[in-house]
Amino acid sequence: MYVDLGNALSTVASPGVSREALERLDDDVAAAHERIETGRADGEHGYASLNLPETVDPDAIRVAVDRFDDPDAVLTVGIGGSALGAATLADALDSDVDAYFLDNVDPEHVAALLDSLDLSSVVVNAVSRSGTTAETLSNFLVVREAMESAGVDWTERTFVTTGEAGPLRRLSEQHDLPALAVPDGVPGRFSVLSTVGLACAAVQGHDVDAVLAGARDGADSLSGSLFESPAYAYGAAAYALDQRGASVNAMMPYAESLETYAEWFAQLWAESLGKDGLGQTPARALGATDQHSQLQLYRAGPRDKVVTMVRPRERADRAIPETDLDGLSYLGGSSLGDLLDAEFEATEASLADAGRPSVRVEIDRVNERGLGELLYGMEAACVLAGELYGVDTFVQPAVEWGKRAARGLLGGVSGPGSDPETRRDPEEADGEFGAAEAVAEKERLVVE
Amino acid sequence: MYVDLGNALSTVASPGVSREALERLDDDVAAAHERIETGRADGEHGYASLNLPETVDPDAIRVAVDRFDDPDAVLTVGIGGSALGAATLADALDSDVDAYFLDNVDPEHVAALLDSLDLSSVVVNAVSRSGTTAETLSNFLVVREAMESAGVDWTERTFVTTGEAGPLRRLSEQHDLPALAVPDGVPGRFSVLSTVGLACAAVQGHDVDAVLAGARDGADSLSGSLFESPAYAYGAAAYALDQRGASVNAMMPYAESLETYAEWFAQLWAESLGKDGLGQTPARALGATDQHSQLQLYRAGPRDKVVTMVRPRERADRAIPETDLDGLSYLGGSSLGDLLDAEFEATEASLADAGRPSVRVEIDRVNERGLGELLYGMEAACVLAGELYGVDTFVQPAVEWGKRAARGLLGGVSGPGSDPETRRDPEEADGEFGAAEAVAEKERLVVE
Repeated sequence: MYVDLGNALSTVASPGVSREALERLDDDVAAAHERIETGRADGEHGYASLNLPETVDPDAIRVAVDRFDDPDAVLTVGIGGSALGAATLADALDSDVDAYFLDNVDPEHVAALLDSLDLSSVVVNAVSRSGTTAETLSNFLVVREAMESAGVDWTERTFVTTGEAGPLRRLSEQHDLPALAVPDGVPGRFSVLSTVGLACAAVQGHDVDAVLAGARDGADSLSGSLFESPAYAYGAAAYALDQRGASVNAMMPYAESLETYAEWFAQLWAESLGKDGLGQTPARALGATDQHSQLQLYRAGPRDKVVTMVRPRERADRAIPETDLDGLSYLGGSSLGDLLDAEFEATEASLADAGRPSVRVEIDRVNERGLGELLYGMEAACVLAGELYGVDTFVQPAVEWGKRAARGLLGGVSGPGSDPETRRDPEEADGEFGAAEAVAEKERLVVE
Repeated sequence: MYVDLGNALSTVASPGVSREALERLDDDVAAAHERIETGRADGEHGYASLNLPETVDPDAIRVAVDRFDDPDAVLTVGIGGSALGAATLADALDSDVDAYFLDNVDPEHVAALLDSLDLSSVVVNAVSRSGTTAETLSNFLVVREAMESAGVDWTERTFVTTGEAGPLRRLSEQHDLPALAVPDGVPGRFSVLSTVGLACAAVQGHDVDAVLAGARDGADSLSGSLFESPAYAYGAAAYALDQRGASVNAMMPYAESLETYAEWFAQLWAESLGKDGLGQTPARALGATDQHSQLQLYRAGPRDKVVTMVRPRERADRAIPETDLDGLSYLGGSSLGDLLDAEFEATEASLADAGRPSVRVEIDRVNERGLGELLYGMEAACVLAGELYGVDTFVQPAVEWGKRAARGLLGGVSGPGSDPETRRDPEEADGEFGAAEAVAEKERLVVE
C-alpha cells in the first residue's frame, strides 16, 4: 500500500496538517503502536483482529466448502460485518461462481432474489456469531423454506459460520452441516480476513492464501512511525485532519470493483470511531462517476472534508476506438484506463487548487493480494485512529438499543445482547426496556 | 408524500429546530415559493425543471423507443444526471427488460459488462446534453465497436438523448437514429422526470404516465407554507437543521429498491447546494442494513447529523416460517415486513432517545406514482433549500475545473465548457488553462 499525504499538507489545503504537526503526532503514533502490539501479543478483544493473517486456517475453510462440488452460486445470509467483508471480496474479484447476499429484510427484495435463483445449485452460508441476529435468522428461515418448496434438501447445500454456541451452532450439529467458527476477539467489521469474509471467497474459487499473504504484507509494514507505515500514515492523517475540521472522510475509489470496499470502509470507520461524540463521518463515493455528483460539494462546499482517492496502479485496459466525430478525435487512440487516470489526477489537482485536502492511496492491482493488503491496512489505520481518539474502538453499544427495541416491538424478550462487544452498554443495567413506550410517545409534526 | 418533523424538533433533539423557529422561517418559505413560482412561470433555467410534469411529452418518448421490439435489455450510456435518474427508476421497479448502465470509464468493468451481454437484443441509449461528455462518448465508441464486432448493426439498436446540437445529434442525423431532446433549462440532476430519466423506463415497459401523475401530485401540493407542503417542510427542515449544526443529511430508505434513490438524492443535494462554502453533505444509507454499520456513529458520534428515514406505507410481504430453534420462536408467525417496520420504528426511537434529529418521509408504495411524487418532492425541497441558502442552485461550476484538466491531460483542447449551466465559472475568463502544470507540481509526502 502506498499513501501520499502531500495534498493534505497545510501548505496545500485548509484544513490541512503541517509536517511539523505530523512529526509531533508521531510520538503518539509510537505509543499507540506499542499499545496495539501489546494487545496483539495478548490476543485482546479487537486487537486480535490484526493477527488474523497468522491465526486463520485457510485449510479449514477449504475443507468446509469442498463438500459442495461445482456450485453455480453462493448465497451469504448475514448482515453488517457478517456480509460486508465477503461482499467486498466478491465484488472486487471475478468468478464463475456468482455471489449473492441477503443482508436486509426487505420482503420484496428477498422474494425477488429467491425467485431468480436455481436453489438446487446454490450453496447457502448462514453467518451470525451469536446465531440469534433477527434479520439473519429470519432470512435463513425464509431461505430454508424456499429450498424445501423447491424440492432441494437444504441440509446438503448449507453451511454455517457462527460462534461456539447458539441456535446456528446447534442447527449444524443436528443436521451435520459444515460449521466454520467465528474467531474470538474479532468484531464483525474486522472479520473480513477470517472465516466470516473468506468462506464466500473460497466457494467462489478465489485464492484465499493470496488474500492472507497480502494482509501479511500489511502487517509487516506496521511500525512505530507514521512516516514508515502506510497504514498508520493514513490513520494518523485522517485523525489529524478531523481534529482540524475535516469531519467527513469521502472514500472514493477509482475502480468500479472497489465500490463495495467503500461501503466496507464506511462500516469500519463509523462503527469503530463513532462514539463519545467523536468520530469522522465516512462518505462513500466512486470515481470518476461521482465527479459528476459529489465533487461540486467537495470542492466548493463547507471546508469539512478530506477526500481519500484510491486506485490500483495496474489494470486491464480497453482502447477507445478512433472516431471522426467532431471535437472527439482527441479521445481516439487513447484508452478508458488513460481517461480514468486523467480524471483521477485532474480531480486531485482540482481539490488542491481549491485548497481542499485529499489523500492518495494506491495498491498494485485489484487482486487477492492487493485486496488483502488494502483491507488489512485500513483496519490497522482504524485501530490506530481509535487509539489517537481515545475511544473504545471494538465495541458498538449504540447499536444495541435499537436492536432490543425492535425485538420488543416484535414481541420477543428484550434481554441483554449476546455479542461480547456490545455487553458494555451502560443502558443494559436499566432493567426492563421501554422501547414500545418510547415509540408510542413519539412527537409528531406531520405535513402531508 | 408524508413528512413528519416531530423527531427533528428541539424538544426532542439537539441539534433541533423549535416550532417557533419554523414559524418564523415560514415567512422566508413564502417568499421563496413566490420566487420559485415566478421562475416556473417564466420557464427560467432550473426552475423549468419543476414544470416537467406538464411539459414533457410521454408520447414522443414512446414513439422513439417503440422502434425496438421486445428487447431483452436496455443499456444507458451516460454519467451523473444523465444516468442516475434512469437508474433510480430502473432499480425501484420490476421489469422483464433488464437495465444496465455505463456511467463510469473503468475499463475492466466496461469490458466485463459488454462480454456478459447479448448485444443483438440490447437497446443502447447514449445520453449527453452536449454530446461531448468525455466518459459517455468514450464508452459509446467502445460499445459501438463491440456491437460491430458481434455482427450487430448498431444503427438498428441505438437511440440518443441529447441537445439540439453536438456530436450525438449529428450522429443521429447521419444514421437516422431516434433522437430524444434534452429539454432546455433542466440541469442533469433535475432531469429524471424528462426524456433523460424516462426513456429507459419506457423501454422497460414502465408506466411513464403514472410517474408523471405522481409528480403532478407533488407539484399540486406546493404552497406558500412549509406547514402545508410536505416537500417544503422537508427542504426547510433540512436547511434549518444544517444552520443549527446538522451539516450531514443521512438519506436512509427502508426499502432495498430505493438504494439508488439515495444516490440520486445525494447528487441532487450535493451538486445543487454545495457552493459558496455552504451546503449540507448527503450521506447514503440503507435500512435496516446500515443499522449494523452507520447507526453507531449516528447515535453516538458528533451531533452533526440528521437522518432522513424513508419508507413505503405498503409493500408485498413474506411470512417468516415458524421455527423450533431456541430463542427464535418470537420470529415465527411474524413477517419480514413486520420486522423491517419494527426496525424502522426502533431506529427512529433510538435516535430520539439519544437526542439526535430524524425526519420521517413516507410514500404510499414504491411504484410509478409513488416514485414520481417522491422524486418531484425532493427536487422541490432542494430548490426551496437553495433559495433559503441563497446559492445558485442550478449551476455546478466546481465540476468544470476537473473536466478541463482531464481533457488537457488527455491532449484535448481545454476550451470553455459547453453546458449552459457551467458557463458562469469565473475561472473560464482566465485564458489558457494550466492543468498539466498543476498536476506536475503536486506536493508529495509518500509512505510506502
